[in-house]
Amino acid sequence: MIKYAIILGNLGNTCDRFLSAGYKDQPSKETMIRQASGISGVKAVELVGTWDVTKDNVDEIGGLLSKFGLTCASIIPDHFSQKRWGKGAFTSKDASIRAQALDETYAAAEMARVLKCPLINLWPGQDGYDYAFQADYRKERRWIVEAVSEAAKANPDIKFSLEYKVKEPRTHSFMARAADTLLIAKETGLANVGVTIDTGHALAGYENLAESAVILSDYGRKLFHMHFNDNYRSWDDDMIVGSVHFVEYVELLFWLKEIGYDSWYSMDQYPYREDGQEALRASVEFLQGVDAMLDARSMAELRAIIAKGDPIESTRWIRGKLFRK
Amino acid sequence: MIKYAIILGNLGNTCDRFLSAGYKDQPSKETMIRQASGISGVKAVELVGTWDVTKDNVDEIGGLLSKFGLTCASIIPDHFSQKRWGKGAFTSKDASIRAQALDETYAAAEMARVLKCPLINLWPGQDGYDYAFQADYRKERRWIVEAVSEAAKANPDIKFSLEYKVKEPRTHSFMARAADTLLIAKETGLANVGVTIDTGHALAGYENLAESAVILSDYGRKLFHMHFNDNYRSWDDDMIVGSVHFVEYVELLFWLKEIGYDSWYSMDQYPYREDGQEALRASVEFLQGVDAMLDARSMAELRAIIAKGDPIESTRWIRGKLFRK
Amino acid sequence: MIKYAIILGNLGNTCDRFLSAGYKDQPSKETMIRQASGISGVKAVELVGTWDVTKDNVDEIGGLLSKFGLTCASIIPDHFSQKRWGKGAFTSKDASIRAQALDETYAAAEMARVLKCPLINLWPGQDGYDYAFQADYRKERRWIVEAVSEAAKANPDIKFSLEYKVKEPRTHSFMARAADTLLIAKETGLANVGVTIDTGHALAGYENLAESAVILSDYGRKLFHMHFNDNYRSWDDDMIVGSVHFVEYVELLFWLKEIGYDSWYSMDQYPYREDGQEALRASVEFLQGVDAMLDARSMAELRAIIAKGDPIESTRWIRGKLFRK
Amino acid sequence: MIKYAIILGNLGNTCDRFLSAGYKDQPSKETMIRQASGISGVKAVELVGTWDVTKDNVDEIGGLLSKFGLTCASIIPDHFSQKRWGKGAFTSKDASIRAQALDETYAAAEMARVLKCPLINLWPGQDGYDYAFQADYRKERRWIVEAVSEAAKANPDIKFSLEYKVKEPRTHSFMARAADTLLIAKETGLANVGVTIDTGHALAGYENLAESAVILSDYGRKLFHMHFNDNYRSWDDDMIVGSVHFVEYVELLFWLKEIGYDSWYSMDQYPYREDGQEALRASVEFLQGVDAMLDARSMAELRAIIAKGDPIESTRWIRGKLFRK
Repeated sequence: MIKYAIILGNLGNTCDRFLSAGYKDQPSKETMIRQASGISGVKAVELVGTWDVTKDNVDEIGGLLSKFGLTCASIIPDHFSQKRWGKGAFTSKDASIRAQALDETYAAAEMARVLKCPLINLWPGQDGYDYAFQADYRKERRWIVEAVSEAAKANPDIKFSLEYKVKEPRTHSFMARAADTLLIAKETGLANVGVTIDTGHALAGYENLAESAVILSDYGRKLFHMHFNDNYRSWDDDMIVGSVHFVEYVELLFWLKEIGYDSWYSMDQYPYREDGQEALRASVEFLQGVDAMLDARSMAELRAIIAKGDPIESTRWIRGKLFRK
Repeated sequence: MIKYAIILGNLGNTCDRFLSAGYKDQPSKETMIRQASGISGVKAVELVGTWDVTKDNVDEIGGLLSKFGLTCASIIPDHFSQKRWGKGAFTSKDASIRAQALDETYAAAEMARVLKCPLINLWPGQDGYDYAFQADYRKERRWIVEAVSEAAKANPDIKFSLEYKVKEPRTHSFMARAADTLLIAKETGLANVGVTIDTGHALAGYENLAESAVILSDYGRKLFHMHFNDNYRSWDDDMIVGSVHFVEYVELLFWLKEIGYDSWYSMDQYPYREDGQEALRASVEFLQGVDAMLDARSMAELRAIIAKGDPIESTRWIRGKLFRK
Repeated sequence: MIKYAIILGNLGNTCDRFLSAGYKDQPSKETMIRQASGISGVKAVELVGTWDVTKDNVDEIGGLLSKFGLTCASIIPDHFSQKRWGKGAFTSKDASIRAQALDETYAAAEMARVLKCPLINLWPGQDGYDYAFQADYRKERRWIVEAVSEAAKANPDIKFSLEYKVKEPRTHSFMARAADTLLIAKETGLANVGVTIDTGHALAGYENLAESAVILSDYGRKLFHMHFNDNYRSWDDDMIVGSVHFVEYVELLFWLKEIGYDSWYSMDQYPYREDGQEALRASVEFLQGVDAMLDARSMAELRAIIAKGDPIESTRWIRGKLFRK
Repeated sequence: MIKYAIILGNLGNTCDRFLSAGYKDQPSKETMIRQASGISGVKAVELVGTWDVTKDNVDEIGGLLSKFGLTCASIIPDHFSQKRWGKGAFTSKDASIRAQALDETYAAAEMARVLKCPLINLWPGQDGYDYAFQADYRKERRWIVEAVSEAAKANPDIKFSLEYKVKEPRTHSFMARAADTLLIAKETGLANVGVTIDTGHALAGYENLAESAVILSDYGRKLFHMHFNDNYRSWDDDMIVGSVHFVEYVELLFWLKEIGYDSWYSMDQYPYREDGQEALRASVEFLQGVDAMLDARSMAELRAIIAKGDPIESTRWIRGKLFRK
């Protein structure tokens, strides 16, 4: 039984560098939480630090989640939305900023405990570089390992999941792809450090979604969390799931079942110009459709198809689903 | 009623730069033509100069086509598969090669008449450049216009359709995208010069397939021909149609109906490791499935969806097709 | 003698979708204009509607430009930074928004006259689409032609230059590439409508910068304006010119001289994390360096190299410049 | 002192899928080896199995290398150029093919001993997949680890270096990027298994060359070998080094010095339409120019620039080199 979640802020206003005030109006926290609970199948939300949750409002947010029957699937500490993080959080060349990035992580862990949230999703989006001769690849990568290790060691009751992304807001991220992020997770030597796949980040990095999930699972069961959205493979367009691709999601969900992934399927979109709740519902409904397609018989058929590896058979199977009478 | 065709050579051996002898064995012409006729819905083939047809075997090929109830949808003159074309055909810096490229085009027109084939598909793949400071963009582009104009003026009974491709075998083609190729077609001032969309070439150039079809149609009904295949949007992978994308093809076929495109839907693939006939059949069956989906009711629904332009509605429509009970 | 300009806002604050309040502080208009005048070689600025100039402050801005010895190279009407443009300006499905987009263009023309500015640079960034079945490619493209025609016809003393960009903020722009935008310019039939190349937009669309300049020039001298920046070829990173590429800019400046381009070389960057003035100065200095390299002797050498088209020679020439003693 | 090598076959004929007979004529082995020795700075060649060296001609090749004063830097076993490898070598679903892939590796090790060659460069180009539901990501990845482990354990006197490539000839390779290939190397637990960076493969995968080198070095000194060529960042164009990029190579060579890389700098190009020897010489001369630029003073300057990380400074440094008087 798939557990669906959404990132709460996806229901709020969205902006970009040209329209910085945003494409929509910002609803109240209660409105957003109510809307989340109104999406059939959604049982939890993810909360972004600063944007959604701070130590000042954490109790209030917890109350609202309870009121609407939701739990907190993860907290994403704010390492990207304030001026101080502009040149990096864990990898800022300024030691005091690096210390603040760690503080922010600890604070997120505290909030997680308040909300009985099991996982911190770390997306230090500013930790990367833009230009040649800007980063000390050796030293700065090590800083990430040290910071993650320290936070995870100090909070063994919480999982820390590293979300990779090939680029944006920097032209290059340190945690860019599944395997390089897995290397960091493994280097910590800690069982509570793993990796998050965001389907859009993986597609933009020319990864095969299913393969990345299998690699993370096989090297020590390190696939901790999943973010879902869609795009045109060259940028993190954060679109409705299934609006561009179909086969990839079927293959991904097939393999998530095969490897026994049992954590959240969480929506992470930027519905700039769409109704937020409807856009998230559309994604959940798409995944529910794919999930229903993957019944025991389909799973067995697909296993047999993979064993032979002939695209004549796999594409026939897909057409059978697309065009069934 | 959609008319399907295939490029005959898709049924033959395929090679690449690493496995130059090819992944398969080369069947006889008769075998390939018989196989083409065995794909339900296929009524014609396209023939590539040198590879499939020459003035020496054109009568024999014509006889085989008749025998198996096929016609010739187009001839693609060989402007790419011989050493002499290596540095360009219409844009070779060697005037004698340019003359030969034109001769080859005339020869194709002759063969077209023998085969009652209405269209020459020009894909001068070597006409481009690899390095900076290699091409004289002004002069060489003009050479293409001049050659195409001359050939088309001399053969007014034949359509000449220019097939664009963003790159390969050169790192940059002169006829790279829909609009720049349309400019060349229009510059000839000839009604019998138009443009071919190869879906894979367009996807690799980050074009929206449907939009390119509409542009070519709107600027003087210049969409003359269509090649179908699929890929991962960054290279001309020449895969089975529908193996990667679905929504794009639905939108493309919708618009091909809207603009009244009535020429061939021709498969152009490189089934390196698959059974050729099965791979082509798979593509035709996929397009037949999409075509059947686009009945009058669907067309009306999609027109209404486009008029509003809300992705909530379009993605709901798509899910309705994907997951219908 | 190359005339350099900058887009004034490049000296101001910059934000993105994650750090919407911006990476820097916003200086006063006077500070920005003074800084612009402090970049050696820069003689003009481009002004963005709403951000930099409105009918309320146009006289004040004009005064400041005079005070600091600058002219106005172009005005870029605001068709992208307000909620009302979120779903398109010239191609909004709402006729009243389309009317407002035209009003904004007329207002820019008025301001241009006040500032003795010869050119309106139209970048209707929101005019595109994100999803399949969202745009009516036929109708909406026509709306652009009609709006541009009307504005340009009504303001024959002003040049209107259409700036293309393959994507962002929409996943697909209507004016996406050099040739499709040229088609629009030509369709107006007006001598005062042309095209702007932004080097970053062209690189992100896999265009060869020099080739695009030549095409626009050759089809009726339609290259009206140039924006300069650099990127990694897959997104509009808006970086310092020459920070990633070198050869491309040498080839571009060579051809700009060959075709007799005599309008502005204007910097268009997003120095999110850098000192704005220094980042712009760096770009101008890079172009000045390339320009100095292209003396009469170099031009003659490069003409000879292009005539032969051998990359052995062109790369030797480049190494000679890179590694001269 | 940098040691330069070339892949011998770069001096021979080259073909692609459209011009399968090749763009040039095939010279004799002696001619190619003589030409290699005629490139100033080149002290070794890499030999490709089947194409360049087999057990039948290995003594003859060894004699020719001696005669022309060259050594053998690496052998690249043929896991890609014969029909039997078409659907994979180490990951073929056919166990007998997998056994043959291992045999081929052992045979290469034997030849390496004959030639006193210290390294086997494994590029199993056919080990990947094209379509969804074609590969068993779990099982097939494990087959690679097992085969490499067995070969490397049995030949402890030889280094085995895994060359990654994001795609081609398959649409997806199993060893696709630096980090996922490093994971395989580490999983063998063997000191004589490392990774090869091909600059073109890394660029096509949106890797930063220098960062990949540092990562491989830092996780256990696993950077064993380097292949050099250039491209436009979206495909393995195999062009002359420095024909497209400059800054990237400066940064790469800076870091190769910093991490103490002391193995070969080997050219790996496909000069389809250029004189092979001249194209390889051009690349070596480019790297020699960059190397000379990176004297002790430059190294110190660049270290200071990286420590601050300000692109204003790094781009000024680059301009200083580009435009020095």
